[in-house]
Amino acid sequence: MSDRSRARRERLSTLVLGADDLVELVDRTGRDRLMDLMIERLRRRFDEHDPSTVLARKRDGFRYDKPALGLVEWMPTHELGGPVVVKMVGYHPTNPSQRALPSVIATTSMWDSESGHLVALADATLLTAVRTGAASAIATDVLAVDRPIRLGIVGLGAQAVTQLHAISRVRSISSVVAIDSDDDIARTFADRVAFTGIDIETAPPERADTIVGEVDVLCTCTSVDIGAGPVVGDTAPTPWLHVNAVGADFPGKLELPASLVEQAFVVPDVAEQCLVEGECQQVPALRHGPEIPDVVRHADRHAARRSELTVFDSTGWSVEDDVALRLAVELAGDYNLGTEFVIECLPPDPYDPYSSADSDHARDR
Amino acid sequence: MSDRSRARRERLSTLVLGADDLVELVDRTGRDRLMDLMIERLRRRFDEHDPSTVLARKRDGFRYDKPALGLVEWMPTHELGGPVVVKMVGYHPTNPSQRALPSVIATTSMWDSESGHLVALADATLLTAVRTGAASAIATDVLAVDRPIRLGIVGLGAQAVTQLHAISRVRSISSVVAIDSDDDIARTFADRVAFTGIDIETAPPERADTIVGEVDVLCTCTSVDIGAGPVVGDTAPTPWLHVNAVGADFPGKLELPASLVEQAFVVPDVAEQCLVEGECQQVPALRHGPEIPDVVRHADRHAARRSELTVFDSTGWSVEDDVALRLAVELAGDYNLGTEFVIECLPPDPYDPYSSADSDHARDR
Repeated sequence: MSDRSRARRERLSTLVLGADDLVELVDRTGRDRLMDLMIERLRRRFDEHDPSTVLARKRDGFRYDKPALGLVEWMPTHELGGPVVVKMVGYHPTNPSQRALPSVIATTSMWDSESGHLVALADATLLTAVRTGAASAIATDVLAVDRPIRLGIVGLGAQAVTQLHAISRVRSISSVVAIDSDDDIARTFADRVAFTGIDIETAPPERADTIVGEVDVLCTCTSVDIGAGPVVGDTAPTPWLHVNAVGADFPGKLELPASLVEQAFVVPDVAEQCLVEGECQQVPALRHGPEIPDVVRHADRHAARRSELTVFDSTGWSVEDDVALRLAVELAGDYNLGTEFVIECLPPDPYDPYSSADSDHARDR
Repeated sequence: MSDRSRARRERLSTLVLGADDLVELVDRTGRDRLMDLMIERLRRRFDEHDPSTVLARKRDGFRYDKPALGLVEWMPTHELGGPVVVKMVGYHPTNPSQRALPSVIATTSMWDSESGHLVALADATLLTAVRTGAASAIATDVLAVDRPIRLGIVGLGAQAVTQLHAISRVRSISSVVAIDSDDDIARTFADRVAFTGIDIETAPPERADTIVGEVDVLCTCTSVDIGAGPVVGDTAPTPWLHVNAVGADFPGKLELPASLVEQAFVVPDVAEQCLVEGECQQVPALRHGPEIPDVVRHADRHAARRSELTVFDSTGWSVEDDVALRLAVELAGDYNLGTEFVIECLPPDPYDPYSSADSDHARDR
């Protein structure tokens, strides 16, 4: 082996988990086991969460209306002693109609906090759907009635698939009422979740008016416009209804009627964020409950909530993305997936930024 | 060609410019032409800068002391109508001694603001050194005497190489006095900049006491500790001295004596940032000059400054990283460099996050 290739081999590489790797990762792991692992890891992280050791930043980003309405946001997090993880999320609502692309496209990256080296870069579109489902499953497990449930889902896009899947891993689902304002999306839902083996009753949009009184657990995962909510009727809810409110993620974007939120025990994922862009926008001052990690850790203390009206206000927490990426990297290691890529140009002489070129040439000559 | 591979080809890919690509990019372009292009593009960007169309964020990040002292920061920027660019920078001062790695490791990424697609990911270690040199060259061209210059450099690490190189592209350099507190670093400097053909006089550390009175242009690019500055003596400067102060980038980190900064016409790159972590920390309230884009645009108006004491307070601006990445992507296109990688997992059915797996399998069967 030449000096040059030896030098090459020793350079730090980045694990790139691309689209094909994620697809294979799901295939090899199995959807159920992947979801179970995500739920297990996330539950443990919630359970052990110590805010004093987690440096997270609120979602921030650029929002613009040129060339089209859209935003690119970053969600950075760091658990002391662990890696730095930053998820980047693009939201471009004209994608499906104008570009045959999903509106949400995301990637996620991990840095070693010892050296600052970029350890891994992965697609986060799939991981985000899985971790969002897992978070709802955990909230459901802690806050919903502990018997076979009738589940309602309003909004039958991508998130609905992983919401149903995740909840099916923590509760037996006796029946599902599935509702979307778009008939074309509603029509394909049963096929998309056929892998769960659960029968789906697809109901017309007006059924959303009364759904809160018909089910034990409800997931709202719509892309309702700002100011156009709520997406369900303001009627009497099942007394023990648990709601996973997943869709709200923007100031003024709301899925639930104010009266329901006001009556409920509301558990935010991140209170600071939920008060700005979640259902907590509708909660009277200081009336929301503890954040999800606290509820998970003290599940016994909150057991009586299973017979009460509860809402999990899920706006998306960067710590969930940290858990998701660590799991993906671990599974990729198990199956030897991904491409190791030397991205960082680390010159042999750290005091000479041009020295990579020099030294390679010198060795070639 | 099978349906599957056709589907694959049509998927959106990300251009990854890794270490080897950057090395080849420099080789193919040539150091001088690369620097000239960077200066030209950056000067144009300064000249056309319209703050109302640039959404940039101040550098932010996680700073920690476990497992070792370090930080990972993000520098996001977006020019309306252009891409979103985020540079990620790690600074881990124990890297050289404990891991044989440079203390600064950086990568940079570009998103299409029409779709949110990750267009490119590149090493930024080399690009940062080149763009920081280019910024000093532009400031020097506008603010320093317009004749062959005697140049002083204090701090002879990686940035010193590109500072000298860049300035040599806008001024004839008649002589150089080069100073570092570390003899080992000082000893190799002449070799590292031999490609410029400029004679280097390496002087002992104590020469820094009087250097401001000996040269026409001075670059300070040290990694002086917080509170340990200034790095040059508080003696009478050459009346027309122009200083590029490159090293200060942290609250309390300073390279220049307060008296020099107080007398000088001080041009920050980003005033808001310089007032917190640059030499502007020492500037009496509201006494700093306009930012560098303004000085470049109105170079005529500032022509008289060439015979006065001036300081360019260079803390690093995310817009410079935007210019650098766009140039790298353009040159990579010219030379067909880089690897196209399908990172984002964009399901064929945007409403089914698991559908990539399905559809691939379906096609295989």
